[in-house]
Amino acid sequence: MASINKNYLKLPGSYLFSTIGKKIKEYSENHPDAQIIRLGIGDVTQPLAPEIIKALHSAVDEMGNAETFKGYAPDLGYEFLRSAIAERDFKKRGCDISADEIFVSDGAKGDCSNIQEIFGLDNTIAVCDPVYPVYVDSNVMAGRTGEYDSLTERFAGVIYMPCTEENGFLPELPKEVPDLIYLCFPNNPTGAVMKKDQLQKWVDYANEHDSIILYDAAYESYISEDDVPHSIYECDGAKDCAIEMRSFSKTAGFTGLRLGYTVIPKDLTTGGDKLWPLWARRHGTKYNGAPYIVQKAGAAVYTDEGRKEVEEQIAYYMTNAKIILEGLKEAGYTVFGGVNAPYIWLKAHNNMTSWEFFDHLLDKANVVGTPGSGFGPSGEHYFRLTAFGNREKTIEAIERIKKL
Amino acid sequence: MASINKNYLKLPGSYLFSTIGKKIKEYSENHPDAQIIRLGIGDVTQPLAPEIIKALHSAVDEMGNAETFKGYAPDLGYEFLRSAIAERDFKKRGCDISADEIFVSDGAKGDCSNIQEIFGLDNTIAVCDPVYPVYVDSNVMAGRTGEYDSLTERFAGVIYMPCTEENGFLPELPKEVPDLIYLCFPNNPTGAVMKKDQLQKWVDYANEHDSIILYDAAYESYISEDDVPHSIYECDGAKDCAIEMRSFSKTAGFTGLRLGYTVIPKDLTTGGDKLWPLWARRHGTKYNGAPYIVQKAGAAVYTDEGRKEVEEQIAYYMTNAKIILEGLKEAGYTVFGGVNAPYIWLKAHNNMTSWEFFDHLLDKANVVGTPGSGFGPSGEHYFRLTAFGNREKTIEAIERIKKL
Repeated sequence: MASINKNYLKLPGSYLFSTIGKKIKEYSENHPDAQIIRLGIGDVTQPLAPEIIKALHSAVDEMGNAETFKGYAPDLGYEFLRSAIAERDFKKRGCDISADEIFVSDGAKGDCSNIQEIFGLDNTIAVCDPVYPVYVDSNVMAGRTGEYDSLTERFAGVIYMPCTEENGFLPELPKEVPDLIYLCFPNNPTGAVMKKDQLQKWVDYANEHDSIILYDAAYESYISEDDVPHSIYECDGAKDCAIEMRSFSKTAGFTGLRLGYTVIPKDLTTGGDKLWPLWARRHGTKYNGAPYIVQKAGAAVYTDEGRKEVEEQIAYYMTNAKIILEGLKEAGYTVFGGVNAPYIWLKAHNNMTSWEFFDHLLDKANVVGTPGSGFGPSGEHYFRLTAFGNREKTIEAIERIKKL
Repeated sequence: MASINKNYLKLPGSYLFSTIGKKIKEYSENHPDAQIIRLGIGDVTQPLAPEIIKALHSAVDEMGNAETFKGYAPDLGYEFLRSAIAERDFKKRGCDISADEIFVSDGAKGDCSNIQEIFGLDNTIAVCDPVYPVYVDSNVMAGRTGEYDSLTERFAGVIYMPCTEENGFLPELPKEVPDLIYLCFPNNPTGAVMKKDQLQKWVDYANEHDSIILYDAAYESYISEDDVPHSIYECDGAKDCAIEMRSFSKTAGFTGLRLGYTVIPKDLTTGGDKLWPLWARRHGTKYNGAPYIVQKAGAAVYTDEGRKEVEEQIAYYMTNAKIILEGLKEAGYTVFGGVNAPYIWLKAHNNMTSWEFFDHLLDKANVVGTPGSGFGPSGEHYFRLTAFGNREKTIEAIERIKKL
């Protein structure tokens, strides 16, 4: 008799954003006139930039013509895109990453959840707390954790690294050495960043202890300060210990278009085994590439005109971030993030729990955010707002919150 | 210290089509004037149909406009596409499958390789021999098999079901009962099909033994004969034992656009556990949906005009199949398939091995096909040609083969 993967049963409840979706639906049904403003899920609202639209139309035309039609994409992604990435995202910042070390995919969520497959089930993972749920959940599904303890809200066998106001929302080097370390900076959900010397300590730690860092840099385009690294490969020795994942979702509004990539240096090894061939094998066997038209759209982001346009979008969202940040301060909230990241991390008033604050905000201001506790127990009493709304609604949301 | 997933090391050599690619590259470099015709990999050559191109342009325009821009897609896929699929692919054929039982994805290759994740590692799998390599390789990577034996060309712990000329390339019901049974009809690589009463026996067997059938129907659009089921759900009781996977790649030329879907009936259980919520959880956690523009392109395939156009393309390819089939017969080959499938399965002359025949054909006729042994030991001495080339080149390839 076929049996199911029982690890799935360890996962408590449903995915965070599904729960939020259900709550909103229920509220809307009971309050049909409520003008709900969503600053919860990290989804963009600005349309794709003109250069990207132009590239898409042009690629669609190619697909309609026998001479220029494209079937299966190359395993790693089209060379034109990988070269542009290597040049603009890495070489220009002094990182020695070549086009052959870049694997194009349909987004960072997939890569972040699939990357664990090339490692053994006996590896111990370390994650920040609070954390983007995908890192932990994908490891739970694979069987790399023990049971969930609903009292501590933690899975057995996982090293949690609390990120709190006291440590500036930056994890401390763990005493028990993990095999795999998930780091995401600029951070989702707290908006915190590591300066270069701070990240260098993690690279040194990983090299000293033979750990592998899985570095999620999905929000690097939002960095505004100079001494914050955009890539982990800006640190010395990172090519010996780190895999980096990137996304076009927030850089260029590709949440509905799907494009991302993972960097695995060719010489990166663990225990003498190279990791590049394993990921290449996984790509070749289980994946058939991002659509040609989407890869062409991605390449448009690296043209001078395309880059200018997406930078304007990023500036637009970061002005929203500033509006949220300053508005909340005026309203007496303790707030973090929002300077190098599109996320604002605030402390709930009156010692409310995160979900109490969620209900409070939904009910009294018709504003939706994300409960900090949904990202882990250290997120309790915190709340995440995103800068991805449109300007008018963002201003309106903050005005409503101020009036509470 | 981080350790790798050692199961990957069980996989012998590289993925079949990578090896073929390397051989062609080497030959081309040594014979720069050779006019190589590729009838090997199953990639389409006809451009996307006009209705699909129209839908793509229109969806791209929506993405460039703030009012109509789409971010993250719904977890299961857009309702407009799932409804069209349920109606046209299932209800119209008398199969009671609802839109909520359809999970839209970026293609059948991913679904075929990911579906094993929701089952326990203790499940025994059964596959046809020869077989599309992805079913076995994805299970090897997960650790559901033993070591590879290079003498028998088989992985320990896997139930192989030989498909030979003697049994009409249809597997026999296995004596040792498997937990998971991979079936692909119309078959890749042999082009064989099961009639409805033949497939019904498998459904009955699975229900009797509590096995789950993973049914890959990627080539259903090529069925030309009446008594061949397009979906396993045409059989009584299939909703109690079967998951079906479909692709737009061969139906509508989406190999470079990426779209497919998996059907999991809501009430399908194994050992009392429902499978639908597990796959839904996987989709929600590890995947972010197929691009909106591609889902719109998929919906165009279900319009009357779109359907007419893709049927013309299928007819074009099936005329190629007839040309190959009859040409090879004239040349004295024993041939199979090519009537309800875009694949022609031929026996090599002079007792050549599959790879000997590959080299022979490449060297003497500059024609590329796929060695049957690459699909499993029972494929030895066989060879696969595909009908996906353009007409002129297909005719030329067959003329060259006739002259050998």
